[in-house]
Amino acid sequence: MKRIAVIGQSGDIPDEVRHIAEEVGAEIAKRNAVLLTGGGSGVMEAASKGAKEAGGLVVGILAGDRVDVANDYIDIPITTGLYFDFRSLILVHSADALIMIRGGNGTLGELSAAYMNKKPVVIIETTGGWAARIKEVAYEGGYLDERRTVEIAFCRSAKEAVELAFQRMEEPIDVMKNTGRIGD
Amino acid sequence: MKRIAVIGQSGDIPDEVRHIAEEVGAEIAKRNAVLLTGGGSGVMEAASKGAKEAGGLVVGILAGDRVDVANDYIDIPITTGLYFDFRSLILVHSADALIMIRGGNGTLGELSAAYMNKKPVVIIETTGGWAARIKEVAYEGGYLDERRTVEIAFCRSAKEAVELAFQRMEEPIDVMKNTGRIGD
Amino acid sequence: MKRIAVIGQSGDIPDEVRHIAEEVGAEIAKRNAVLLTGGGSGVMEAASKGAKEAGGLVVGILAGDRVDVANDYIDIPITTGLYFDFRSLILVHSADALIMIRGGNGTLGELSAAYMNKKPVVIIETTGGWAARIKEVAYEGGYLDERRTVEIAFCRSAKEAVELAFQRMEEPIDVMKNTGRIGD
Amino acid sequence: MKRIAVIGQSGDIPDEVRHIAEEVGAEIAKRNAVLLTGGGSGVMEAASKGAKEAGGLVVGILAGDRVDVANDYIDIPITTGLYFDFRSLILVHSADALIMIRGGNGTLGELSAAYMNKKPVVIIETTGGWAARIKEVAYEGGYLDERRTVEIAFCRSAKEAVELAFQRMEEPIDVMKNTGRIGD
Repeated sequence: MKRIAVIGQSGDIPDEVRHIAEEVGAEIAKRNAVLLTGGGSGVMEAASKGAKEAGGLVVGILAGDRVDVANDYIDIPITTGLYFDFRSLILVHSADALIMIRGGNGTLGELSAAYMNKKPVVIIETTGGWAARIKEVAYEGGYLDERRTVEIAFCRSAKEAVELAFQRMEEPIDVMKNTGRIGD
Repeated sequence: MKRIAVIGQSGDIPDEVRHIAEEVGAEIAKRNAVLLTGGGSGVMEAASKGAKEAGGLVVGILAGDRVDVANDYIDIPITTGLYFDFRSLILVHSADALIMIRGGNGTLGELSAAYMNKKPVVIIETTGGWAARIKEVAYEGGYLDERRTVEIAFCRSAKEAVELAFQRMEEPIDVMKNTGRIGD
Repeated sequence: MKRIAVIGQSGDIPDEVRHIAEEVGAEIAKRNAVLLTGGGSGVMEAASKGAKEAGGLVVGILAGDRVDVANDYIDIPITTGLYFDFRSLILVHSADALIMIRGGNGTLGELSAAYMNKKPVVIIETTGGWAARIKEVAYEGGYLDERRTVEIAFCRSAKEAVELAFQRMEEPIDVMKNTGRIGD
Repeated sequence: MKRIAVIGQSGDIPDEVRHIAEEVGAEIAKRNAVLLTGGGSGVMEAASKGAKEAGGLVVGILAGDRVDVANDYIDIPITTGLYFDFRSLILVHSADALIMIRGGNGTLGELSAAYMNKKPVVIIETTGGWAARIKEVAYEGGYLDERRTVEIAFCRSAKEAVELAFQRMEEPIDVMKNTGRIGD
């Protein structure tokens, strides 16, 4: 079973972003992949709702130890016992690919961690937040530094995002591109 | 003893960036603060060299378990047993303030983690890399999202950076500004 | 869905221990709980096989990033990107209760972490290894120190172990018993 | 600079244990090694006091983010942002050798982690707690499982403990002894 993480804005989100996140969750479920999220509100909750209603399986990688802080659409809560920043790394490491929708600083950190770990990321750039901001400052339109570790993909719809996420998973990452020392 | 982390580009760096990093290290030492870095090459090594030559104390928060991968200017290696992304979070949590010089994706991740954890960051924006890129996409010129958790400071010289880092440490962070849920 | 972790010996295990582990996995599945393990060989593999054959859901909390090092009976691999010791803590934090079968030093560390985090542990004391050794040195037969954080339960069969694990989960842990400072 | 961790009981400790811990700290300082502890009370505080009064350097590897929870004898607090169990692993990974004095369950977990990571541990077995209990259940008097990863040393005085810790650091650990898969 493939594991796709949806990362993005928590808290209040615009209706159109919510619909996109729900559709992403549903598409992931239809392809029999597991949806991973950070288990919170906003984009995470909407994607999880979409996946559950489409019969999918949802894993929440939660900060701390309490299950009751998670949203209502999680089948399996992984309570990491870690603060938000550390738990986000567990989420990134556990995903075969990530889809980014809107997003504040926490999402930016997850994007950066995904890039360091050579995980394919697809950004729905029409959803605002960092999803709309990163392209303009990315290196050559799709990298987070000169190492060109793994190219970020951009798209404009839920279906396209899930399609791209599956494609990217299949492509072997050319790790030889990564010539610098990781970690700076 | 105050703890100031210097984060930035590993590997090859331009001479002028190296000089700035060395001067930052020296200034930190002169103020009797401990220098923390990730213990690697490039900016981390230059800052550590500057601090050591000025009689300072240098701590390296290292990925993995091997001391011999660290640069030559570390008094106390903390071998975290963790991969680069997790160890960067230990570095951020352990710092009272951070100074950012140049930097690739790893440094971007550290900046994001610092912001999430309400740590003051001073960026020397003349040093290239993400240090030169972040301002243009920051929210209102100094925040990493709409929560305005803690304002990033920008400057153009080593002396100014250390001066600002000390000032920011003294200011109580107004955590009430942080109204959203952390972690998205 | 309740989450029960099975911890114990990796590598070669005696046949009777393997049968017990399989039966524990099957019983967990029959009660519609999720089985969590570290995803390795030995007890972890046997419990996972038992759960899968009984139609259960199995999560492997893996060290590192590679899925292909896991045993063949895992539905959802959580690749933590962490070394074995750190990943064991994620496993412990994610479980509502733990069942311990045989076990070397890694299992001992997991038992200790479970106790610190007030997670109920049931030990099948007839399976050898630390499962057979801990009772004689435990404080008052069931605690790992004078704080009496949470009492360890001992039993002699798979059915009894799962039954006890479910009972213990239901009991509210009296955290007031824990008067000392955690962490020494 | 060699890094020696002192692990042991927090909270109230008997006077004679306090004196031993202070002497251990002083001996570490006299040999120009850095003392690492978890930064808490009890044994950790006493060892740190001993090291400071002998002119040594003390690093506290703290749980959480607050410096003010640490004892008064720490030069450099490393605030890991992690809960006690995770921070203990950072402490173990950062040490070249460990000395164990008394100790509850948290100390037992640190001992287990040290063994997994092939770090030499010296236990002052006259100090009570797990320091007095582990020998009777250890495999062949000095191992925590059949893998015989690294032999635990036992002694009865502070001077002997520090002497042994230095000796053990020098000996190359025969990792070929460790034939099993780590992590169970």
